[in-house]
Amino acid sequence: MSKLLLDALHCCNKDRPPVWLMRQAGRYMPQYRAIRAKHSFMQMVHDPEIATEISLLPVNLLKVDAAILFSDILVIAEALGVGLRFDEGKGPIIERPLDKPQDVDRLPLPNISESLHFVGETIKLLKPLLKVPLIGFCGAPFTLASYLIEGGVSRDFKKTKQWMLREPKSFHRLLDHIAKCTIDYIQLQIKAGVQVLQIFDSWANALGHAQFCEFALPYMQQVMQSVKGPKKIPVILFCRGSSLFATEMAATQPAAISVDWSGDIGKVRSAVPLPVALQGNLDPDLLYAPKSLLKREVKRMLKTMRNDPGYIFNLGHGIHPDVGVDAVKLLVDTVQGND
Amino acid sequence: MSKLLLDALHCCNKDRPPVWLMRQAGRYMPQYRAIRAKHSFMQMVHDPEIATEISLLPVNLLKVDAAILFSDILVIAEALGVGLRFDEGKGPIIERPLDKPQDVDRLPLPNISESLHFVGETIKLLKPLLKVPLIGFCGAPFTLASYLIEGGVSRDFKKTKQWMLREPKSFHRLLDHIAKCTIDYIQLQIKAGVQVLQIFDSWANALGHAQFCEFALPYMQQVMQSVKGPKKIPVILFCRGSSLFATEMAATQPAAISVDWSGDIGKVRSAVPLPVALQGNLDPDLLYAPKSLLKREVKRMLKTMRNDPGYIFNLGHGIHPDVGVDAVKLLVDTVQGND
Repeated sequence: MSKLLLDALHCCNKDRPPVWLMRQAGRYMPQYRAIRAKHSFMQMVHDPEIATEISLLPVNLLKVDAAILFSDILVIAEALGVGLRFDEGKGPIIERPLDKPQDVDRLPLPNISESLHFVGETIKLLKPLLKVPLIGFCGAPFTLASYLIEGGVSRDFKKTKQWMLREPKSFHRLLDHIAKCTIDYIQLQIKAGVQVLQIFDSWANALGHAQFCEFALPYMQQVMQSVKGPKKIPVILFCRGSSLFATEMAATQPAAISVDWSGDIGKVRSAVPLPVALQGNLDPDLLYAPKSLLKREVKRMLKTMRNDPGYIFNLGHGIHPDVGVDAVKLLVDTVQGND
Repeated sequence: MSKLLLDALHCCNKDRPPVWLMRQAGRYMPQYRAIRAKHSFMQMVHDPEIATEISLLPVNLLKVDAAILFSDILVIAEALGVGLRFDEGKGPIIERPLDKPQDVDRLPLPNISESLHFVGETIKLLKPLLKVPLIGFCGAPFTLASYLIEGGVSRDFKKTKQWMLREPKSFHRLLDHIAKCTIDYIQLQIKAGVQVLQIFDSWANALGHAQFCEFALPYMQQVMQSVKGPKKIPVILFCRGSSLFATEMAATQPAAISVDWSGDIGKVRSAVPLPVALQGNLDPDLLYAPKSLLKREVKRMLKTMRNDPGYIFNLGHGIHPDVGVDAVKLLVDTVQGND
């Protein structure tokens, strides 16, 4: 079992930095597209054998230092019964988005170990096939709430923010309800065997500082703090906005902060000392660049973070679906010193 | 003539902070919508009498402490001959966007004092009618380049960033070309009488730190540094991303940084000492909030920046078109102590 990722998360890595990539099992891979051509996205998520096969793709092809469960943060929305589908090229659609405070009180508290049992099965199938650690994940309550309210991806999060500002009490109730389900969900993942957990607050950058501290961070923290006891595993917090809010995030004492691509990770390290590990933060658009530039930028980041015992190489957001596999492979090889 | 804004820009204001609002002359005002119903957006920009009337609306209605010229950053695109129109509800459209490096070399170097003469005329009409300072403005080269390449508003700036990463030399040539035109444009505005200049790099948050330092900031700086000599006026730099990049922006020594709504302006002040003034940074979405919350948040910001001789109250981005005039009026009244 490769120790690189866990050592870096414990801020005691003396070797080269581990590397894995957000959305490493995704549409940029021809093998993924071949599976996707035969199944809907939700079928792929629901079927433990397919989800296992997809989770393994980047491990085998890229030789990354960690696997991440193939799934989607919105399985929680599905469990909440609001209707979830993925339309080709459009991203997720919530069929019955929440519209008013009373809708929050009508949300069920689902039995997560029943409704999301397929995730546990995937983890159990996948785990024995891996020689690298397995990362589980979930969405953070704010990001999940924004999907439930907007009904999908939003440009301005207007409905979410209007609700939050006009009806803060019911918005807090919604966040709390999602946090409860999410805690059950990560317990399911931990029991099934994930060794690391990443919480994704992908849309937290829709919030200003005071709003982030009131509506996003405390709920990430609540989810994170439920990971305790003898099965305590390291938790990585990711949000868009983490370059700006790193100090506030560090105060909640996660194992690691995954830094978005906006900021300078060296500056973030000055503000966030060890023993908080840092993950990131290459701009995913660099995978469109000529190979020479990509390699130079990867090396520049490695130089910035050299000898940092708590550094994990990653992008600052997920891989775009239309980048070349060669570019992704070059990135991983460069971090691993195989270029 | 009210001295508040200029005193704050010189970091010697002992009075209450001045207040003006980005996009203060806009669609949220019934008077604006009435004019817009009779004219296209570009007619309103091109006609000095109409542009003057619109510029005056918020000064008379809200009693803000500064006027800003009614115009659009994309008049430069129009002067460059790429075709510009504004479709209702869709934002700006560039009819012939740039597609390849050779397109940059085909761009004309227009005679700005001829092609944008209407802006000078508006300023000359407007100036004698004002008892508050008049702010002129322009787009920053990176933001203008992104419009020229994307052909309009973009979610991901993919074309722009791909061009920037794959063809950095021609991208720099484009930025340089836009900067040249922009320098002529602000000279026109200064000669006509604006007393303050704000440079808008609205989409700079599409860039990571190193990219911002290579492709955005130096060109804002180039434009800013052309403002010199006996007619030197204070320059305010605005970008989305200014919460994160405030230190880098401050190093270019602008009179003021306009802070986007993401960050905590108190933290920005700790990182950016006087004599750089700070402007901002209320979340424009707060204008959707109940009056009590809006007022509380305005007062909280005033408290954070109290006794700061270089503070200008503003939003962190422009006013949304669908907020209530009452909310905007309450904001201004609260800052001015008339609530």
